[in-house]
Amino acid sequence: MRIYDRPGFPNPTRIRIVLAEKQLDSQVEFIPVDLIGAEHKSPAFLQKNPSGVLPVLELDDGTFISESTAITEYLDHMDGHPTLTGTTPKQRGLIHMMQRRAEAELIDPVGEYFHHATPGLGPKLQAFKSLDWTGRAEWGRRQGERARAGMTYFNAVLGQQPYIAGEVFSMADITIFAGLLFADAAGLTIPENSHALLAWRARVAELPSVKHRSGQAFLADDARRLGL
Amino acid sequence: MRIYDRPGFPNPTRIRIVLAEKQLDSQVEFIPVDLIGAEHKSPAFLQKNPSGVLPVLELDDGTFISESTAITEYLDHMDGHPTLTGTTPKQRGLIHMMQRRAEAELIDPVGEYFHHATPGLGPKLQAFKSLDWTGRAEWGRRQGERARAGMTYFNAVLGQQPYIAGEVFSMADITIFAGLLFADAAGLTIPENSHALLAWRARVAELPSVKHRSGQAFLADDARRLGL
Ligand SMILES: N[C@@H](CCC(=O)N[C@@H](CS)C(=O)NCC(=O)O)C(=O)O
Ligand SMILES: N[C@@H](CCC(=O)N[C@@H](CS)C(=O)NCC(=O)O)C(=O)O
Repeated sequence: MRIYDRPGFPNPTRIRIVLAEKQLDSQVEFIPVDLIGAEHKSPAFLQKNPSGVLPVLELDDGTFISESTAITEYLDHMDGHPTLTGTTPKQRGLIHMMQRRAEAELIDPVGEYFHHATPGLGPKLQAFKSLDWTGRAEWGRRQGERARAGMTYFNAVLGQQPYIAGEVFSMADITIFAGLLFADAAGLTIPENSHALLAWRARVAELPSVKHRSGQAFLADDARRLGL
Repeated sequence: MRIYDRPGFPNPTRIRIVLAEKQLDSQVEFIPVDLIGAEHKSPAFLQKNPSGVLPVLELDDGTFISESTAITEYLDHMDGHPTLTGTTPKQRGLIHMMQRRAEAELIDPVGEYFHHATPGLGPKLQAFKSLDWTGRAEWGRRQGERARAGMTYFNAVLGQQPYIAGEVFSMADITIFAGLLFADAAGLTIPENSHALLAWRARVAELPSVKHRSGQAFLADDARRLGL
């Protein structure tokens, strides 16, 4: 298998943690993609993923799978023993519900904030980012508020149960963890008094798959290099 | 099981088709929710689904599952024989990839277009729809363009394979089918020369689960009643 990604970026990080959880790192060849140079918007890359985002998984038969949820489904089922996507119908339902919320209420709005209300990944990529529509920055800021409201919601969830989708660690926890890393890098702070969220974050950060995941250098490094 | 929905609406329609495919209709009690009266934004409903949208599944133990993908995962696995979400890891990966694209590139942007660039479901609900931000209508129109670009993309996919995620009918086909119904109601036309998409649509419309699904009256009826 090959994975096209850029280590340290939030959605690629989701898959790095999944690979560590499933002990699959050694089976993967990582191909770095130059996001800052907008390589992911080139015709060659769009053939792999028409949505023009990372990560992308390439199977040995040449099939491309993109979308972190879909890649996780593939990796989690490879050995016939899913551990991150649920085993009963109810677990599967709740995990997919929280995974979708983790994207819609946290990691995706952080991304929109980052690309529209801040300089994002710099000038080269901005040209691909919907060319100055009226109210673009305002919309980006609203997405930032939305992400912070999401943090408040997930804090409340974690006041009731140990993990995002219930009693067990799942792909939804991974998405929230990566979303919070992204929020840090984008300058969006966690609302005060989010005790349950912060305690959960500290616990998850200590999991071996999270602590020792490969490619931790985060996009803040890129941002510093770009002088953003 | 109970399903909170409004028959004929696009995301509820996804689940009505899933229920018919899995022959589960008779096991479900449907509870109608008054979208036009903004019942889904009331505190009582937000307790069931904090995202304030339909459909929502309630299990007999009182668990609520929202998000159509998550509900589909639950229903498809109830009998231990999934038919809509894939059986092999590769199928699961490809189906979830296309399901996510079907939402991100079609049904969700149609919804944004409908609510922001048209009168949507009328005045009562509009008050909940992000209160006039600058460029709101422009943003809605861009989402309409995005949805039409999505149609062109799915047309190209269907030029290569019989169904959205490959050789077999899956939940991703259901999402695209419901997305096109929504586009019709919102006044977004399918781009010319989308032959593969139109041929696929005609084929899918003839499937028993689609043809005989319950609650077909579509939101166009509501819109007419509202004089929109
Ligand atoms: N829904 C996608 C999101 C992927 C995504 O947004 N990836 C970011 C990197 S973290 C990206 O490629 N951004 C580049 C861009 O937006 O131009 C997933 O789940 O994988
Ligand atoms: N991502 C959700 C979308 C649900 C959704 O947008 N439902 C519509 C009805 S088709 C709704 O409740 N709209 C009300 C609103 O946006 O206020 C899903 O997959 O179920």
